[in-house]
Amino acid sequence: MEVKNYLLGYDKMYIMQDTDMFNFSLDSVLLPNFVTLNSSVKKIMDIGCGNAPIPLILSTKTKANIIGVEIQKQVYDLACKSVEINNLTEQITILNEDVNRLYQNMESDSLDVITCNPPFFKVSDDSKLNKNDYKTIARHEVKLNLDDIFKIARKLLKNNGNIAIVHRPDRLIEIIDIMRKYNIEPKRVQFVYPKQDRDANILLIEGTKNGKSGIKIEPPIYTHGDDDQYTDQIKKYFE
Amino acid sequence: MEVKNYLLGYDKMYIMQDTDMFNFSLDSVLLPNFVTLNSSVKKIMDIGCGNAPIPLILSTKTKANIIGVEIQKQVYDLACKSVEINNLTEQITILNEDVNRLYQNMESDSLDVITCNPPFFKVSDDSKLNKNDYKTIARHEVKLNLDDIFKIARKLLKNNGNIAIVHRPDRLIEIIDIMRKYNIEPKRVQFVYPKQDRDANILLIEGTKNGKSGIKIEPPIYTHGDDDQYTDQIKKYFE
Repeated sequence: MEVKNYLLGYDKMYIMQDTDMFNFSLDSVLLPNFVTLNSSVKKIMDIGCGNAPIPLILSTKTKANIIGVEIQKQVYDLACKSVEINNLTEQITILNEDVNRLYQNMESDSLDVITCNPPFFKVSDDSKLNKNDYKTIARHEVKLNLDDIFKIARKLLKNNGNIAIVHRPDRLIEIIDIMRKYNIEPKRVQFVYPKQDRDANILLIEGTKNGKSGIKIEPPIYTHGDDDQYTDQIKKYFE
Repeated sequence: MEVKNYLLGYDKMYIMQDTDMFNFSLDSVLLPNFVTLNSSVKKIMDIGCGNAPIPLILSTKTKANIIGVEIQKQVYDLACKSVEINNLTEQITILNEDVNRLYQNMESDSLDVITCNPPFFKVSDDSKLNKNDYKTIARHEVKLNLDDIFKIARKLLKNNGNIAIVHRPDRLIEIIDIMRKYNIEPKRVQFVYPKQDRDANILLIEGTKNGKSGIKIEPPIYTHGDDDQYTDQIKKYFE
């Protein structure tokens, strides 16, 4: 069932969801709050935008043009509605495309920033996945993997443009390897911990095309307090 | 001037320092509290042990034999005295050797654990360093660099043995690269932050010889509170 939910605080921004699919996740709220944005950023692409939580939140932080790319028609339809109900059609453009095809026809060195909340899970040869299922496509690397993402970034980002992604910490090393394979230098990392005294469960990482080496590990984010409620740090993101 | 200081809590353990040289640092306290030790660990080597803070603290946590290697005679002398005044000559052996030479004459696959608080700073061709100065040797990679350390670890560690080092976060990527070059798989990382809302300034990393891939980011450590005093987490290490 299609429903209109609050994305940010009461009455501030809405998002269209389909209760039969999946809800936007905290990952999609953390990433636009992590990525480096400044006044020189004019054009942003969000790869695999889903129902558009990242473009929507980005629009509260930048005047840049935002392109969201979503391969799945049903999800794309939700993204378009999400943009419309917030009156953001001027700033945000959603494309129903496979980004692996689309980027080949896009101009090199044309984007200031790329964001991506990609599928997190590898596909092994023997995995019994329904490769057309929308959940599978969103969660497993059947249509888009890390190599694709950074290959696209190398072509489309301007020199010194940034790409920020959210992922799982256990794939940190692989992510760093692939970034550098495509001349994207990892520059900023932030780890997100579910609680105090627990291992990190979310990784935020930003790299710069042809950037100089040297990485910063930024202050930790805790999502939940001992009372199992969101911390103030997280609540702030929804204001 | 040579003085006898407390290493751990009052009257528990001492360390010999030379006030004209440098004091042991928090790094040397963090590392032995980070490294994985269990009852199967029988033999440990601390590379570049200085006046032996790491061997001394390790001795409070394990019954394993501990070898400390220190290239500088003056510093080695302090280390020996530190071991003696704590009556630890049975458990700890200090060698006045260049580990890059020593390891060639040591048996392969013979150590369970290696620890190292290495020199942090790169040596550029034009750096005007006095390469014989003891501070330079302790701080700059004139006698020992990251490549040396992990090359030694690959030879001396048993299969699945661990090496843990303390370093600076901005060299994380380089460290991971070198570890993997020598088949040391990074398995555990802990970042140390000087205070809340500040970037990490110390990196603790442990790798396993021929280990499987997959890294864990453990809970953050904060060294100082808003009152500029050590946090309880750090005070605990000195008890």
